[in-house]
Amino acid sequence: MVFPGFWVVFEGADGVGKTTQVELLAEYLRSDAGGGREVVTTREPGGTPLGVELRQAIMHGDHVAPRAEALLYAADRAHHIATKVRPALQDGAVVLQDRYLDSSVVYQGGARGLGDEVERISLWATEGLLPDLTIVLDMEPDSSRMSRDLDRVERETIAKAAEMRAAFLARAALDPGRYAVVDAARPVETVQGSVVVAVLEAIAAKAAREADAAAGSDLGVEPWGTP
Amino acid sequence: MVFPGFWVVFEGADGVGKTTQVELLAEYLRSDAGGGREVVTTREPGGTPLGVELRQAIMHGDHVAPRAEALLYAADRAHHIATKVRPALQDGAVVLQDRYLDSSVVYQGGARGLGDEVERISLWATEGLLPDLTIVLDMEPDSSRMSRDLDRVERETIAKAAEMRAAFLARAALDPGRYAVVDAARPVETVQGSVVVAVLEAIAAKAAREADAAAGSDLGVEPWGTP
Repeated sequence: MVFPGFWVVFEGADGVGKTTQVELLAEYLRSDAGGGREVVTTREPGGTPLGVELRQAIMHGDHVAPRAEALLYAADRAHHIATKVRPALQDGAVVLQDRYLDSSVVYQGGARGLGDEVERISLWATEGLLPDLTIVLDMEPDSSRMSRDLDRVERETIAKAAEMRAAFLARAALDPGRYAVVDAARPVETVQGSVVVAVLEAIAAKAAREADAAAGSDLGVEPWGTP
Repeated sequence: MVFPGFWVVFEGADGVGKTTQVELLAEYLRSDAGGGREVVTTREPGGTPLGVELRQAIMHGDHVAPRAEALLYAADRAHHIATKVRPALQDGAVVLQDRYLDSSVVYQGGARGLGDEVERISLWATEGLLPDLTIVLDMEPDSSRMSRDLDRVERETIAKAAEMRAAFLARAALDPGRYAVVDAARPVETVQGSVVVAVLEAIAAKAAREADAAAGSDLGVEPWGTP
């Protein structure tokens, strides 16, 4: 799907610095150095008033059945994409989003055993809209503690985190053109540098593809056609 | 899926008398004449506290994106079936329910153009649980008004209602073993009579199937095997 805007999603475990990197990137892209762009920052779940309401329903109500919970997140996503993300992209903004499809697949789909259907329902919810770039902020889970004596619960928690991390990396590896894996264990400014490079490269690559398409060139699909 | 209980769903347009027939049937089945059964009456959407909350989110919030609305109804259903209907059936109760899958398919799927995916998502939401019997209360839409002069909006409303009616009847025709179509244009007591007959027949048929299965008979699957 081609939009005048550009959509970046940040994924990764809790605590890897997604919120901080979204803010720093927004600041940079809005600055003169970053092109003085229009930037919208948002998040899932809870990126709209309806989403906030649904999040409360999930958190504060009685126990919510697992499939009901997965469907509520999908409803939040459908509404968020239709009423906030898609319009911003059509207006030409850069949208920076904290968590999207990969989080659902990794957390609800993988961890709770609901399989590929979570991904299928999400894609239906959003009419198949995918980010231009997904940045996976990657960090080894709590590696400093590995050497200590750990009880069973601690060991299981770390094993789980390692599994989630592997799931994010596996998704990134499947579609390298749409993903950038950034080592998030480094200082915040260093991480930001890598993020900015990845985003500017992806924006340039998209612009080049669109220029090719507009010029009627088939370089994008048949690079071997022009020796 | 085999349960000790029995699950009846009432479907049909607004105003055909679903709520009344649910109440009358519950009264009958609880009475000595009806077998003194344990009966649970319920409805979708809004059959649980979470469902009531979701219904309010749909009704009172800003405009809800169409796919988000369909997913909220599916979430309501997932939670309702998991926490109320399935446990009641496992306890051996008769569950009488106002609206289920067919309403979603006919209203969201058909009328709003969201296609077969609404049915697919609903079946995933409920892990494929289907009623033992669905009673379609059938009535010609507002036929008395057909002879009058109607403006365009009135004609369109009646045409829409006729389309919905045809959609309910088509679903019933596809699976006659699980559906009973009852003419709801007759007096309430007459309609109730037809409903009671349909329910008692379906309960007896299910009991016979289960007795066959328990006796190791294969009559149910190979009637031609015993000449």
